[in-house]
Amino acid sequence: MARVLTGIQSSGKPHLGNILGAIKPAIALTKNEDNESYIFIADFHSLTTIKDPVARIDNVNAVAAAWLAFGLDINRSVFYRQSRIPQVTELTWYLSCFTPYPMLANAHSFKDKSDRLSDVNAGLFTYPVLMAADILLYGADLVPVGKDQLQHLEISRDIANTFNHRIGEELLKVPEARISNEVMIIPGTDGQKMSKSYNNYIDIFLPEKQLKKNVNTIITDSTPLEEPKDPDVCNVYKLYKLIANEDQTLDLREKYLAGNFGFGHAKKELLELILDTYKNEREQFNYYMNNLPDLESKLMAGEEKAREEADQLLATLRKRLGFG
Amino acid sequence: MARVLTGIQSSGKPHLGNILGAIKPAIALTKNEDNESYIFIADFHSLTTIKDPVARIDNVNAVAAAWLAFGLDINRSVFYRQSRIPQVTELTWYLSCFTPYPMLANAHSFKDKSDRLSDVNAGLFTYPVLMAADILLYGADLVPVGKDQLQHLEISRDIANTFNHRIGEELLKVPEARISNEVMIIPGTDGQKMSKSYNNYIDIFLPEKQLKKNVNTIITDSTPLEEPKDPDVCNVYKLYKLIANEDQTLDLREKYLAGNFGFGHAKKELLELILDTYKNEREQFNYYMNNLPDLESKLMAGEEKAREEADQLLATLRKRLGFG
Repeated sequence: MARVLTGIQSSGKPHLGNILGAIKPAIALTKNEDNESYIFIADFHSLTTIKDPVARIDNVNAVAAAWLAFGLDINRSVFYRQSRIPQVTELTWYLSCFTPYPMLANAHSFKDKSDRLSDVNAGLFTYPVLMAADILLYGADLVPVGKDQLQHLEISRDIANTFNHRIGEELLKVPEARISNEVMIIPGTDGQKMSKSYNNYIDIFLPEKQLKKNVNTIITDSTPLEEPKDPDVCNVYKLYKLIANEDQTLDLREKYLAGNFGFGHAKKELLELILDTYKNEREQFNYYMNNLPDLESKLMAGEEKAREEADQLLATLRKRLGFG
Repeated sequence: MARVLTGIQSSGKPHLGNILGAIKPAIALTKNEDNESYIFIADFHSLTTIKDPVARIDNVNAVAAAWLAFGLDINRSVFYRQSRIPQVTELTWYLSCFTPYPMLANAHSFKDKSDRLSDVNAGLFTYPVLMAADILLYGADLVPVGKDQLQHLEISRDIANTFNHRIGEELLKVPEARISNEVMIIPGTDGQKMSKSYNNYIDIFLPEKQLKKNVNTIITDSTPLEEPKDPDVCNVYKLYKLIANEDQTLDLREKYLAGNFGFGHAKKELLELILDTYKNEREQFNYYMNNLPDLESKLMAGEEKAREEADQLLATLRKRLGFG
């Protein structure tokens, strides 16, 4: 039985990139009987960039609702908001005293963020220690990561090893990275990787009218309507292909190649595909967003379990560190 | 009513320098009816340098016993171990997201420590944020500080101001520094400032035989026994003067000036003075060190009060930051 831990950013609304690249693969993992899944919304982390409480709560609720809408079974996973287990900050302090300062100073995500953001706060700097605490608090065996998160996972492993070595006992489980073989790059409306930061995302949970506008922002070239078009260079087709089944994809492909089929038509087909494929998920999402107490209750069981786990590890650590 | 907060290091056994420079003045402050005193042992901080749990617990117990032995009245003060209110680490995370990174990078205590210590860990770097959390968690009005701690207090003030400004409400009380007018420098056995780091301290709680050895390590010059001596350049006399009353000091001064009085004699007088002056304190100290459950119970009332205060502030902050 491997414990698989997945942290989810909550610095924005969940978009198609998150859904195809993170939510669906993680939910697939929870269905493996050999795995025990811990899935949490990293809202403490979001404080490094978001100071507005209303935005934070909205994002957290939307992210939780998206996971539930896509079928996360809370009986097969421990699903929780990071901030409801504040014990993680205690572990963060312990770990920071075993984290070499230069390791954080050299983390490329910090360098990147300090170049990009105007608010370069200490939380951005210690971010990888909080992330290590997220993982080590629950003794995770496996952490699925994208390539951009691999250095953070290496830092978590280093901290755990240093800690165990200094304490003289394997108190912290050293997690393994699980890097997806097929790294799924979801293109955004401009063809770059879909991302909140680039503001090029498709929000499939929008009401139909707004979703239509959202889909219409996808950038296409200026090939005239009547001419045949190359589907493989078209952002609309690329997104369609990620959602559709084989037959649907082939159909659209033929229309592109035949000509007399404009990008407006293609966008309309993509919109219809989204509305049709995610009909149930959109309903579920709206249900939870309009019934927050229900959403809350779905999170509470996981949070209680996570707190118990956290308290247990901390009791051991406090004893071994001399904090009674 | 001003709330006065004093943090006590627990990185070593309490020595004469701590007692004369910190413990006695702080206890005097607790007797002022206008003050409400919060006094805590900063054992979380000690993890930055001490990894051995036995040493940590011994130090914490000895420090607590010293304060009680010198008459700290737990009914007139809130006396607690920092680690028993782990809520402070949650506040540390919040504050670190409002702490400009360069402010920590430029803190001279970090620069000093990273030059001096081999284990330069991230805890040393974020130390001032934990210290800010110690102060802000309890809404302290006044923090007595030595000149070397003044920058840390300035950092705490800056963090509180930044936080309040960003949140748009005065949620955190901005503390004032209280700098002692007469900065008391207690000389160590080598004439430098008495300090654990310099290993030049007098431990007045040692058993008599060891205390005698300890006093005998005080460095004196080689003026022959029969010659008159200048008391004002003698480390033994300087320490004697800090403990003795005026008459006793004058007596010793005359002996120095008269000649036929060796440094061995002076050390003997200092030893006797310590044993005599601190007879009661030595007994009390030993009592607590031999009755740890009693020591524990003296701390528990303060810790419960501190936890209540901490929970109250955190509940407000969590709401305002969007952590439900």
